[in-house]
Amino acid sequence: MRIIKIGGGARINIQGIIHNLTELSGPFIIVHGANALRDSLAEQLDKRRITLTSLSGYTSVYSDQEALDLIMMSYAGLQNKRIVAMCQQAGINAVGLSGLDGALVRGVRNKGIRVQENGKTLIKRDFSGKPHEVNTSLLNLLIENGYVPVLCIPIIDEHNIPINSENDDIVGLLACELNAEQVIQFIEAPGLLKDKNNPNSLIEELSSEELSVWEEKAEKRMKRKLHALTKLCMLSSHPEIIIADGRVENPLVQALAGSGTLIRGLVCKTQ
Amino acid sequence: MRIIKIGGGARINIQGIIHNLTELSGPFIIVHGANALRDSLAEQLDKRRITLTSLSGYTSVYSDQEALDLIMMSYAGLQNKRIVAMCQQAGINAVGLSGLDGALVRGVRNKGIRVQENGKTLIKRDFSGKPHEVNTSLLNLLIENGYVPVLCIPIIDEHNIPINSENDDIVGLLACELNAEQVIQFIEAPGLLKDKNNPNSLIEELSSEELSVWEEKAEKRMKRKLHALTKLCMLSSHPEIIIADGRVENPLVQALAGSGTLIRGLVCKTQ
Repeated sequence: MRIIKIGGGARINIQGIIHNLTELSGPFIIVHGANALRDSLAEQLDKRRITLTSLSGYTSVYSDQEALDLIMMSYAGLQNKRIVAMCQQAGINAVGLSGLDGALVRGVRNKGIRVQENGKTLIKRDFSGKPHEVNTSLLNLLIENGYVPVLCIPIIDEHNIPINSENDDIVGLLACELNAEQVIQFIEAPGLLKDKNNPNSLIEELSSEELSVWEEKAEKRMKRKLHALTKLCMLSSHPEIIIADGRVENPLVQALAGSGTLIRGLVCKTQ
Repeated sequence: MRIIKIGGGARINIQGIIHNLTELSGPFIIVHGANALRDSLAEQLDKRRITLTSLSGYTSVYSDQEALDLIMMSYAGLQNKRIVAMCQQAGINAVGLSGLDGALVRGVRNKGIRVQENGKTLIKRDFSGKPHEVNTSLLNLLIENGYVPVLCIPIIDEHNIPINSENDDIVGLLACELNAEQVIQFIEAPGLLKDKNNPNSLIEELSSEELSVWEEKAEKRMKRKLHALTKLCMLSSHPEIIIADGRVENPLVQALAGSGTLIRGLVCKTQ
C-alpha cells in the first residue's frame, strides 16, 4: 500500500502526478491539501486566516466556524472534486471522501492552544484536533472493489463535530493503520532543504534521529511537518518516506527515481 | 428503498428531516440541493448566475466553468459535508458523494440550448447535461455495509468532465435504477399548489395524466420539476412520490402522515 500526499500549493503539478499514477502497480490512496485554494477563497470572501503560535513554538491555523466552512468548500468541495475528475479522466476510479464521510478519520478536539497575547498567557480553543482512528474497513471496502479513495479534511471529532486537522498527522495515522510500505509527499520544493532559501541544499537521505535534529532547527509549518514525521507510529511496517518536488513535469516518476528526500528507519512511538 | 430529496432552499429544516430519518425503517439514500448556498456564495464572490430560457419555455442555469466551481464548493463541499455531519450526529453513518465519485452518476453533456437573443436564435453550450446511468454497484456496496449515501451534483459526462444536471432528473433516474418504493421531496411550499401564490391551494393527490396538465401551465423551475416527474421511467417499481413541506418542525413525519402532494401511477417512459 502506498500513500500519495499531494500538497495544497498552487504550483503542484497535480495532473502530472495523476498521469504518473496510472503506471503504478499495487494499491494506493491519495491524500490532498488545498492551502492555496483556501487562502484565495478566504481573500475573495474577505475572511482573514488567523494563525496562532503556541508557547512551544508550533504555528497552526485558528479554525473558527467560518474557517471550517472554508475548508469544506475548498478542500472537500473544489480541490477534492477537481482531483477526482482528473483521476476519472486518467482512468483511475477515484472516490473523494472527507474525514466526516463514514467517520473515516476520527479525531479528538484540541483542548486549546496556549498562546501569548499582550504579555498574557491565554488558552484559545477552536475546531481543530488530532486524528486518532481510521475507518479502515470503509477504505478497504472501496480499495478491494477497485476504487481509489481521495481523502481530505475536515475530520470528525469525538462528538461528531467537523474539525480541522494537520494533513501530516492524518498521513502518519493512515500509514500506520493501512500498513503502508511507502509514503510519497509532494511539496513545492525539491525535498527537505538544509537551508530553506537555497534550493540546492537538498537533504537526500535522513534517519529518524537526524529528523529530530532538523525539527528543532525548523520554523513554522516545516516544524509541524517534521514533528508529524517523527511522531509516525509504525506498528508493524516501516514505510519509506519520500518528500519530493511536486512542481516538475513527472513528479512521481522523479520521486521514485530518487530525486527527493528519503527518510528511512522510523521507529515506533505511541502518539 | 426510499429516496429522500432535500431541496436547496434556505428555509428547509434539514436537521428536522434527519432527526425524523433515525426512526425510519428500511434503507434510504439522500439527494440534496444547495441553491440558496450557491446563490449566496455567488453573490459574495460577485459571480452572477446566468439563467437561460429555451425556445420551448424551460428555464435552466447556464453553467460555465465558474458555475461548476461554485457547485463543487456549495453542493459537494459545504452543503454535502454539513448534511453528512448532521447525519453522523444523529447516528446515521452517512457517506457524501457527488456524481463524479466512482462515476456515480454518468450523464451526457447537452449539445446546447436554443435561445432567443435580440431577435436571433442562438445555440449556447455549457457544462450541463442529463443523467443516464447510475453506478448502482457502488451505492449497493455502501448500503449493504451500513452506510447511507448522501448525493449531490456535479455529475460526470461521457468524457469524464464534471457537469451540472437537474436534481429532479437525477432523483428520477435513481428511483428507477434502485427500484425505489417511495420518493419524498422536501420543498419550501406545502406541496404542489394550484396557485403558486396561494399556500392554501395544495393539490393533495395527482395522477400522472393530471401531472402533464399541470406541467403545461407551470412556469420556470416548477415546470422543470413537473417535467422531470412526468419523465420518470419506472421500469418495474411504481414508486409513490410525495412532495412535502420541508420547512415544518417534523418534515418527514408530516410527509408520511399525508400532509403534502401524493403522486401515484406513474407510467414507464424511456428518457
